[in-house]
Amino acid sequence: MDKKTFSGIYPYLPTPFDEAGNFKEKPLYELSDHLIKKGVHGLTPLGSTGEGPYLDWETKKRTIEVVMEASAGRVPVIAGINNMTTRGAVDEAARTEALGVDGILIVLPDYFPVDESEVINHFKSVAEAVSCPVTLYTNPKFTSWDFSINALTKLAEVPNIQYIKDASGNIGKLMSVVSSLGDRIKIFSASAHVPVFVFMLGGVGWMAGPACLIPEKSIELYELAQEKKWEEALELQKSLWPLNMAFQKYSLAACVKAGLEIQGFNVGPTLRPQKQLDETAKKAIRDILEKVGAL
Amino acid sequence: MDKKTFSGIYPYLPTPFDEAGNFKEKPLYELSDHLIKKGVHGLTPLGSTGEGPYLDWETKKRTIEVVMEASAGRVPVIAGINNMTTRGAVDEAARTEALGVDGILIVLPDYFPVDESEVINHFKSVAEAVSCPVTLYTNPKFTSWDFSINALTKLAEVPNIQYIKDASGNIGKLMSVVSSLGDRIKIFSASAHVPVFVFMLGGVGWMAGPACLIPEKSIELYELAQEKKWEEALELQKSLWPLNMAFQKYSLAACVKAGLEIQGFNVGPTLRPQKQLDETAKKAIRDILEKVGAL
Amino acid sequence: MDKKTFSGIYPYLPTPFDEAGNFKEKPLYELSDHLIKKGVHGLTPLGSTGEGPYLDWETKKRTIEVVMEASAGRVPVIAGINNMTTRGAVDEAARTEALGVDGILIVLPDYFPVDESEVINHFKSVAEAVSCPVTLYTNPKFTSWDFSINALTKLAEVPNIQYIKDASGNIGKLMSVVSSLGDRIKIFSASAHVPVFVFMLGGVGWMAGPACLIPEKSIELYELAQEKKWEEALELQKSLWPLNMAFQKYSLAACVKAGLEIQGFNVGPTLRPQKQLDETAKKAIRDILEKVGAL
Amino acid sequence: MDKKTFSGIYPYLPTPFDEAGNFKEKPLYELSDHLIKKGVHGLTPLGSTGEGPYLDWETKKRTIEVVMEASAGRVPVIAGINNMTTRGAVDEAARTEALGVDGILIVLPDYFPVDESEVINHFKSVAEAVSCPVTLYTNPKFTSWDFSINALTKLAEVPNIQYIKDASGNIGKLMSVVSSLGDRIKIFSASAHVPVFVFMLGGVGWMAGPACLIPEKSIELYELAQEKKWEEALELQKSLWPLNMAFQKYSLAACVKAGLEIQGFNVGPTLRPQKQLDETAKKAIRDILEKVGAL
Repeated sequence: MDKKTFSGIYPYLPTPFDEAGNFKEKPLYELSDHLIKKGVHGLTPLGSTGEGPYLDWETKKRTIEVVMEASAGRVPVIAGINNMTTRGAVDEAARTEALGVDGILIVLPDYFPVDESEVINHFKSVAEAVSCPVTLYTNPKFTSWDFSINALTKLAEVPNIQYIKDASGNIGKLMSVVSSLGDRIKIFSASAHVPVFVFMLGGVGWMAGPACLIPEKSIELYELAQEKKWEEALELQKSLWPLNMAFQKYSLAACVKAGLEIQGFNVGPTLRPQKQLDETAKKAIRDILEKVGAL
Repeated sequence: MDKKTFSGIYPYLPTPFDEAGNFKEKPLYELSDHLIKKGVHGLTPLGSTGEGPYLDWETKKRTIEVVMEASAGRVPVIAGINNMTTRGAVDEAARTEALGVDGILIVLPDYFPVDESEVINHFKSVAEAVSCPVTLYTNPKFTSWDFSINALTKLAEVPNIQYIKDASGNIGKLMSVVSSLGDRIKIFSASAHVPVFVFMLGGVGWMAGPACLIPEKSIELYELAQEKKWEEALELQKSLWPLNMAFQKYSLAACVKAGLEIQGFNVGPTLRPQKQLDETAKKAIRDILEKVGAL
Repeated sequence: MDKKTFSGIYPYLPTPFDEAGNFKEKPLYELSDHLIKKGVHGLTPLGSTGEGPYLDWETKKRTIEVVMEASAGRVPVIAGINNMTTRGAVDEAARTEALGVDGILIVLPDYFPVDESEVINHFKSVAEAVSCPVTLYTNPKFTSWDFSINALTKLAEVPNIQYIKDASGNIGKLMSVVSSLGDRIKIFSASAHVPVFVFMLGGVGWMAGPACLIPEKSIELYELAQEKKWEEALELQKSLWPLNMAFQKYSLAACVKAGLEIQGFNVGPTLRPQKQLDETAKKAIRDILEKVGAL
Repeated sequence: MDKKTFSGIYPYLPTPFDEAGNFKEKPLYELSDHLIKKGVHGLTPLGSTGEGPYLDWETKKRTIEVVMEASAGRVPVIAGINNMTTRGAVDEAARTEALGVDGILIVLPDYFPVDESEVINHFKSVAEAVSCPVTLYTNPKFTSWDFSINALTKLAEVPNIQYIKDASGNIGKLMSVVSSLGDRIKIFSASAHVPVFVFMLGGVGWMAGPACLIPEKSIELYELAQEKKWEEALELQKSLWPLNMAFQKYSLAACVKAGLEIQGFNVGPTLRPQKQLDETAKKAIRDILEKVGAL
């Protein structure tokens, strides 16, 4: 079993592409380096924001390698495992760990419906294929399944399953997780959450796309939470909320990429057929970045 | 315009029925009196927990009258307006105000889909039909519509629309309400929320069914929040959470009624064809009430 | 047990209102008389098209009385029972039968979720409260419940439950009904169906809003089906299909009312907050009525 | 532009795997040969039944090659293109055509939502990447998008887009397609349809998983439809319907595979985490196969 523990601000990295859809290494390297210099506590390539479910292994591999080169051991790298089959995910997890990552985060995109016993089996099988710490991920807006408390209780039997990121935005569900599992499975806040409240519940960090755009304020938020300055943290959170409102209105990966382009990182557009942002949306994002002091 | 302001613990009262479905006045009177003696700040008959959408005017009228007689002016009474048509809701609101209530809460059950302009028109028309303060209510789990921020902004132009209770359980939506409307529309926490967090956001109170079962602890939670003792409040909240977990598993009105029956209030079953609780569910509720010290 | 059997074209009658929402008897009487003169086989007030779930008993009562006066025994009248509670529906069914109707059709609007055992109990209880033939109605687009084959099998034990109208538009579901229940429960086609195919499956008639606008062509379609001229029937159906496409785009009751207004029946608008048609939509309906020869 | 036209029975082939998830060539070859000998008009590997969204290119390539070897030019082979990105699908389509297939069928699994302009762009881009006839495929139960009539009208501008398979089971939607597009885009019936009715509407064939289990009866159904013996065709369809009912209850690919195993084809289980069938389900499938004379 691994001895590493993760906490703090873990930006969900976008995966940069040119207009033709070719992976671009340089902006990923530069963004990773930039974020580390700003003080983030770790990096998370190949999550939803990283368009993980859309990529082939070659692109995933290069993405991880670039982020690890940029990190150069300065911060932990937790890579997303995105695979529709249990067998494929097991294989991808093993290959990913072999690249030297510090942890993995398991995303399960679906097509045909899956039932609870298969959800449990999938996450368990993938976790058992690696020795690093595992973060469970669920996003019920995009999939037909979600973790029940029963499923999480079963998954908590696997020692290296140590974290969960639940992108539902339902803080009551997190209360139920805490109520049922104590701190056996630690919680990372997601983009859709109000992180201050997740921190109050004992959440150990924030894994989300917006942190790419506002790393310093994200870190400040985390530190206020560490000092239990809840009201100050909430004030800061409120000042940043317009960014969340834009991200809910448009689509997450496209917003993060558009914002980074405005900030000067040439991460390019999202892969089609994901919804593309029009000029009105880009203008709205620019206005908000200005408003929250991120330009 | 009304000068009243509402805050604190407002239990959503169940409407008692016998097995045949006849309205029972006595347990409603007793429960109302009991809750006021326990210190609740107001009473809310005819919300979702009160099975408001299922009742005819005669039953609604008697429900309000009984609660007002029991209250005898000790606490404000905010009555739910449950009507599928705008015309019917306007009429019901006027009749309800004529009974002397202190405020109304507008619930809009639907059958055919409604669009945003009609949602705005409905709530605006009903609010303009009364002079007392109005609480907007939305429960997107049970209806095809929800308030957009745009709709709330339009509704904020009506002076006596002063409160919102959003039963979605999505705290991020409340952040967006606060971010867009400041304190122009004040927030009441719902059953599905984690009230401590709503209080942190500036929420003025908690309107929910569970407060019928745990009035003293609900009041304690509110008072801790008033004193900004957020961590103590959250600890108390955590200790009560198993009750929420049960209420999410079964159905709300049935759980509140089953719990009150166990506590000795003969509020009876919910009206059919709402899901009835079986013995296993009732046993689970008893166990939880015991666990949270409510027996 | 009743000896009546129903078959053929049963227009779903709209309930006329003036702009203020007052029930208008005259256009309902005239429309009913007009449709009978055109040859329809029966009349169905207070279905979905009749905005049944939105009406109080007084309006329902007058609606039924007006239709029965207009019919004067020339065709059967099947009245909708729209009530959220089992008790209320039982009472409404008994009162409706006492008005002299030939059959009832049971609609179950919901607010809180209902489960299968309560669905069975509801329809069974209401059917047992009357001695006339009963038509089961389900519209899963507007409710959280639907009939399973198991539920229908249980309901088939009640002798006077003799018909079903399933508004889902899923012809495969009807195949399953026929496969499981044979002709124990006879099928009426709904607005969302392709009636020719329902007739091929043994369907006994068509109960739908559009028949108000095109009674003669609806009857012609039924007669072609009776003569098993399937290809001619389908050709006719194809020529009428643009009407269905409009009705799916906008909302059913509003479309039927707008079309009837264009044809000279002053049935007025639908009750708010149902979606209202704008001028573009009304123009589209006029164009289609012209195209299908209904002006 | 291609001169080929497709019609008749095109079984959706399962992709055989052993318990460990390794692709098995032999049962695919044998099943393909068997179905051709039984008289099917074409073969369709890598559709939903073929678990196409779950496979990597190597497996897809071998699947197509094995089916083509088995076919040896006796019947057309239409291969599914399953790719979440437009770029990936374009590439996969070109590679697939290079393997010598007669047509392709485009499936678009999604994760993040897609909007109409991107749906149009995706199918258009993929179609333009090949010169063979293209079948559009939509299954709104498993994806967040569906073809609007507007989207189909735009796609009809691409010459080699010639067929559609709409797995929604909504025959009214097909009426709208016929009404709007005439025979510009020809329709294949899907598993969820009642093929007789699709044939009446001018449908040219049936592409579905169940045809693997009942090839002769499927062909008989098609031939009755060709001879316009609609009532006989419907009688046959009715006798086969219990198979559809089972497939709706459990999951499609798993049912087809379980049925083929019972018939002696060692196609193995579906890839996890798809729902696996338990013994009760397998027993139910055996009983039904017996009932419909497929054992």
